[in-house]
Amino acid sequence: MNYEIGQIPNRTQKPRQNGFTMAMDKGLSNREAEDFLSVAGPYVDIVKLGWATSYVTPNLDQKLEIYRAANIPVYFGGTLFEAFIVRNRFDDYRRILDKYKMQYAEVSDGSIDMPHDQKCEYIRQLAGQVTVLSEVGSKDADKIIPPYKWIALMKAEMEAGSWKVIGEAREGGNVGLFRSTGEVRSGLVEEILTQIPSERIIWEAPQKSQQVWFIKLLGSNVNLGNIAPNEVIPLETIRLGLRGDTFSDFLDAAAETK
Amino acid sequence: MNYEIGQIPNRTQKPRQNGFTMAMDKGLSNREAEDFLSVAGPYVDIVKLGWATSYVTPNLDQKLEIYRAANIPVYFGGTLFEAFIVRNRFDDYRRILDKYKMQYAEVSDGSIDMPHDQKCEYIRQLAGQVTVLSEVGSKDADKIIPPYKWIALMKAEMEAGSWKVIGEAREGGNVGLFRSTGEVRSGLVEEILTQIPSERIIWEAPQKSQQVWFIKLLGSNVNLGNIAPNEVIPLETIRLGLRGDTFSDFLDAAAETK
Amino acid sequence: MNYEIGQIPNRTQKPRQNGFTMAMDKGLSNREAEDFLSVAGPYVDIVKLGWATSYVTPNLDQKLEIYRAANIPVYFGGTLFEAFIVRNRFDDYRRILDKYKMQYAEVSDGSIDMPHDQKCEYIRQLAGQVTVLSEVGSKDADKIIPPYKWIALMKAEMEAGSWKVIGEAREGGNVGLFRSTGEVRSGLVEEILTQIPSERIIWEAPQKSQQVWFIKLLGSNVNLGNIAPNEVIPLETIRLGLRGDTFSDFLDAAAETK
Repeated sequence: MNYEIGQIPNRTQKPRQNGFTMAMDKGLSNREAEDFLSVAGPYVDIVKLGWATSYVTPNLDQKLEIYRAANIPVYFGGTLFEAFIVRNRFDDYRRILDKYKMQYAEVSDGSIDMPHDQKCEYIRQLAGQVTVLSEVGSKDADKIIPPYKWIALMKAEMEAGSWKVIGEAREGGNVGLFRSTGEVRSGLVEEILTQIPSERIIWEAPQKSQQVWFIKLLGSNVNLGNIAPNEVIPLETIRLGLRGDTFSDFLDAAAETK
Repeated sequence: MNYEIGQIPNRTQKPRQNGFTMAMDKGLSNREAEDFLSVAGPYVDIVKLGWATSYVTPNLDQKLEIYRAANIPVYFGGTLFEAFIVRNRFDDYRRILDKYKMQYAEVSDGSIDMPHDQKCEYIRQLAGQVTVLSEVGSKDADKIIPPYKWIALMKAEMEAGSWKVIGEAREGGNVGLFRSTGEVRSGLVEEILTQIPSERIIWEAPQKSQQVWFIKLLGSNVNLGNIAPNEVIPLETIRLGLRGDTFSDFLDAAAETK
Repeated sequence: MNYEIGQIPNRTQKPRQNGFTMAMDKGLSNREAEDFLSVAGPYVDIVKLGWATSYVTPNLDQKLEIYRAANIPVYFGGTLFEAFIVRNRFDDYRRILDKYKMQYAEVSDGSIDMPHDQKCEYIRQLAGQVTVLSEVGSKDADKIIPPYKWIALMKAEMEAGSWKVIGEAREGGNVGLFRSTGEVRSGLVEEILTQIPSERIIWEAPQKSQQVWFIKLLGSNVNLGNIAPNEVIPLETIRLGLRGDTFSDFLDAAAETK
């Protein structure tokens, strides 16, 4: 840090299992990716190339190289996986992961209907090739999954080999974990937490109010995802109690850690 | 494209008459314009320097050169035209188009009242100098133009020499074609389409939900405008059925084109 | 300007006491700061490093150097001041201002409760070291300060040595001067203006509709703050009557100044 303030909550260090920030790159240029890393590099743990944007960005090879040089893992958004599955081309997807030397992959069913056994089988197979993140929740705002089912899905996916499970929110933060207004389905989150350890979950939380809500509930070192590149620094200040929203939340706790 | 997925809808190629993406530059730096083109270049067909931003951006000459070198046509937003007209300086406007070697110009009346005969006369005169885009719709949310009049205005402007007519939405997507909430005036759009060929229209659609609506109605190769630079890649994935919003819309059609 | 339009309202020149634009940098990279200045440099008067972002951005020294080279003053957001005060480390804060050769500082109490005498004492002390901006208004949407009290606070802070007083809005424009919807508390603003000269106030106004409202009320040369870097050019066009929103507001006035 640039200077000493004192009474700052402890943050986990890289490689983080907890306190993890996943950022979403939806088409950055090489120079924009470099700029992003030059300020947010210490605070971002993994980058998702949103949905299937990797298919159309002309600079894919170079950008992967930029993230690799900065030691930031990258993965393709789950919608790309689904695009291959719906075309019955899972093997081609696996070859593409190899071609681009990907070390992480997402398995999701946000845009297609897939028997959950089959999803878990994909997780199992991919877990032999890469580190798997799997996502629970639909991209369709009308498909409400009850809490007990979120829990069952998450458990089964972790048993199948998922490193972490992601709670769906999309880029907008208006489905899955959230109502269409962006409000957190707090009952859902709290019920999930009775059964699944928080460090195994990445909560997609693109809106500031959503990030604040999770940090107030679970502390500085909650795993958050779908953070826009230019919001990684603001998020870090919220985690540290250095923005108005969490200004008073960590003072006592931080004092105790001194 | 970076890899093969299969069953991707056919996209028109440049120079496109249909399937056209017009992006809005509201003050990019030279380097930002280069970055934008380095990823979105293949997908952007024309760039508008929004309203009169060209008057105040210090880097105008250099930026025009950057777009020219990338073979991306540029035009000044219609509000600049109107600023000259309201000051009774049409000839000065024509000289400025020449000075900057502009090959396109927009004629609009979104901020001023102008007899439509006069607007068509400006179109006629400018069409001898440049390729003209003309815009229909007010920037004033309270001025509702009924559908039959949209059609009459568009027809007259095309007869006067407009290459394409633009449906107004502003940067925000909350006037003209849209209600103040951003919702599409779907009856208006559908009525326009009974009389005007879709390829002659550029629909300003800055919000994702608006882009999705038009793509679902008119297919991958609808002309869309006022796209923010960092939304050109996301838009392209929506056109290709590779984002959740249109994931299932093109699978059958694409299969048939194989 | 790039070309002549005519009948453009007079804008004050740097160093401006009025017609002032304060931009918010919440974590720009060095190159992004350079890009920002390359287009907005002539129009931005001062840059705030939002809240305590300066604590976590790795490029602080270099970025300060970039702004310094461009002759743009910079200050740390008031939340950083408050973070030191709540930890009882005011002297450390003063040393940090010296360490980074800051020539401006903000004194605020948006996130903490502080007796107003004490706030004024901080202003008094800091005014011996730097130029002080002080901010009135809470970051808590539920803390409504009545107009007469805004006036009393502003007067006392100016007497204590504040160069200008800032009306709070946050990055979102949804507290302090504004309702949670972003609507201006117009009665509050108008009452303040009966007692405090407009040129002593910087109105935080991040949303376009808020900027338009103040420019319509107070003219092109109103002091506005919390402007996002990529909104400085758009704001300048609104000040000049060259965007739809203020297109008709300055035509007569400008004609008279010719």
